[in-house]
Amino acid sequence: MRRAKSFGSLSSSRSLGYELPLVSAEQFNVKVQGRSYRTIWPAAGGRAVEIIDQTQLPHAFATLRLESAAAVADAIRSMRVRGAPLIGAAAAYGVALAMAEDPSDSALARALAMLGATRPTAVNLRWALDRMGAAVRPLAVAARADAAFAEAGRLADEDVAINAAIGAHGLGLLRAAREKQKNRGDRLNILTHCNAGWLAGVDWGTALAPVYRAHDEGIPVHVWVDETRPRVQGALTAWELAAHGIPHTVIVDNAGGHLMQHGLVDLCIVGTDRTTRNGDVANKIGTYLKALAAHDNGVPFYVGLPGPTIDWSIARGCDIPIEERAPEEVTSIAGRTPDGAIASVAVYPAGTLAANYGFDVTPARLVTALITERGVCPASEAGLLSLYPERGNG
Amino acid sequence: MRRAKSFGSLSSSRSLGYELPLVSAEQFNVKVQGRSYRTIWPAAGGRAVEIIDQTQLPHAFATLRLESAAAVADAIRSMRVRGAPLIGAAAAYGVALAMAEDPSDSALARALAMLGATRPTAVNLRWALDRMGAAVRPLAVAARADAAFAEAGRLADEDVAINAAIGAHGLGLLRAAREKQKNRGDRLNILTHCNAGWLAGVDWGTALAPVYRAHDEGIPVHVWVDETRPRVQGALTAWELAAHGIPHTVIVDNAGGHLMQHGLVDLCIVGTDRTTRNGDVANKIGTYLKALAAHDNGVPFYVGLPGPTIDWSIARGCDIPIEERAPEEVTSIAGRTPDGAIASVAVYPAGTLAANYGFDVTPARLVTALITERGVCPASEAGLLSLYPERGNG
Repeated sequence: MRRAKSFGSLSSSRSLGYELPLVSAEQFNVKVQGRSYRTIWPAAGGRAVEIIDQTQLPHAFATLRLESAAAVADAIRSMRVRGAPLIGAAAAYGVALAMAEDPSDSALARALAMLGATRPTAVNLRWALDRMGAAVRPLAVAARADAAFAEAGRLADEDVAINAAIGAHGLGLLRAAREKQKNRGDRLNILTHCNAGWLAGVDWGTALAPVYRAHDEGIPVHVWVDETRPRVQGALTAWELAAHGIPHTVIVDNAGGHLMQHGLVDLCIVGTDRTTRNGDVANKIGTYLKALAAHDNGVPFYVGLPGPTIDWSIARGCDIPIEERAPEEVTSIAGRTPDGAIASVAVYPAGTLAANYGFDVTPARLVTALITERGVCPASEAGLLSLYPERGNG
Repeated sequence: MRRAKSFGSLSSSRSLGYELPLVSAEQFNVKVQGRSYRTIWPAAGGRAVEIIDQTQLPHAFATLRLESAAAVADAIRSMRVRGAPLIGAAAAYGVALAMAEDPSDSALARALAMLGATRPTAVNLRWALDRMGAAVRPLAVAARADAAFAEAGRLADEDVAINAAIGAHGLGLLRAAREKQKNRGDRLNILTHCNAGWLAGVDWGTALAPVYRAHDEGIPVHVWVDETRPRVQGALTAWELAAHGIPHTVIVDNAGGHLMQHGLVDLCIVGTDRTTRNGDVANKIGTYLKALAAHDNGVPFYVGLPGPTIDWSIARGCDIPIEERAPEEVTSIAGRTPDGAIASVAVYPAGTLAANYGFDVTPARLVTALITERGVCPASEAGLLSLYPERGNG
């Protein structure tokens, strides 16, 4: 499971339509028990892909081998892989596995439909499937499997490069925030919601990439980690930050407003599952509440935004489909019992109804800036078009 | 443990300095397994008090007999009794138990100090202890125990009357909200945070008293129940509402903003642990975030406010002491395992740091109105003084 963190595929970033900044191999940060990992990688010598099973974290680190598109779809649905960028990369490998099994047009269509139906909100899923379809469809049937694996690999490598670039651009903001701190003895307090670290992408992460860079540069960062009920992705963030030695404190989702009222948060950074043309940001449920509190207290609120997460086809956030998940994610919670076993406990009376909306939309007016792989811009159509001029109509 | 819900002590409301509206016995709503309960009551034939052990809810309904002031202090600290009004009533009985054991001046001072140190934020605690001290101190030592029990009983009965009156005044607001609903087929959607139902008072509750009244009057209410991490008081609210047959749906604390953005909340009602002279409202951590979302979406945000929860000595909410509790309340959670046992599970990696602030302050500007036992008023010093003119300086 050891993997070399080569960057041989960076040249493939031409398929994004622009050049990414060069990022050296030393900047990769993901190490678990002394080994370097991405969150997804092709299995050695086979038509299979391996993932870190995120449903077992933070209690156990386990990898899982997926040998079919159906297995990938199940892994996405059950959140063994999660996070908008990683969902896209996983879906791409899912198409490749489908082509290895049956490279026909009808099998391609079935795989795209099955994988596309796994989760509705992250637009990276649709983006990755569109790209895979476009890459594979014109090819002779016999050439499709190899080409699909190669394309999925390129897509994954590009995600790494994109996130590394978000890290570089976001670092500038964190450095500036540190410069502004009057009391230089304080640490720089950053609040994040959900997990938009390396586990949410192929590597680096979006929101946390700048945090990793700042820490590595010697800026004394401290992260307030939102629990992020119902799925407690805060535990993933805590696990990631601990592995990298970054000081952090977990808090319940209710606490961030109080912290901001008391000057205990210097800035917020979150990821996004889909950002619309006008800069509205869909992200994990609860993000909107933190953005409101940041706005009310003059705390900068940043969003780490990979290009593939922009949905240029939707004008406003209210048109983004919001996933509703099983009520059991709300009414029960899993954790470690004192004897080390993993158990799920029910926290409500039997029969209690629950609603489980996966995401909410933070209006652009509450977002201080978007941090993309091309630079930092205002959360507005003009801002996004200043970085992605090829998307303009003019 | 059956108790008659007599209202014989209503005349004692003169000690509040004003008359409470008469509330008939039929309006009491608390029934568990066919029996009527308050949350605290004097034990039959003895110098003891009985409580519902709220740490066992919603999984088990159990009562607990407390025979000393130290046992009461422990029950308050460990949240076997909780909710600002109930904390006040429990502390009052705690003083009575101390006087039964040792009615000396020094024992009185020790009991007041011990009980006063249990929890810092709810001002009802200090209010109840001040009142008990004032009632007992002038008396001959031999008369103190009986007088203290009688005074604690009056205080508890007054709490019931206060909450019943809050229910009556709040009912008017809910009725008006129902009238305003364009689509009369819809239910009236009410969001609440934490538990400010009958479990949080001696009976009725503050925030939920109007909801019980509205339901009983045939208004089709539906309650969105915030989970309220870390202590999951949403489970208490769900249990209460289920016992009374009121439709409700539990949600994680992150979800309320999304619901309000989509028109799924008609109004919010919460309780308070301390409200300052200017109308700033301290309540369970996370209340501020919901008030921000309500304000951003034009949703009325009401606070059920018993007179004893007003701290006339503090001008602004930022001066309210905010309790910090054990980090384990954040890093672990208790619930029912599939075999019915109650277990606590750890949700974070071992050694993860957590911060646990118990309350936050919602600024008066975000509060639509305060619902007191004397009527409804704006959240401002002028508003409060219009109902409590005796507190004015003029």
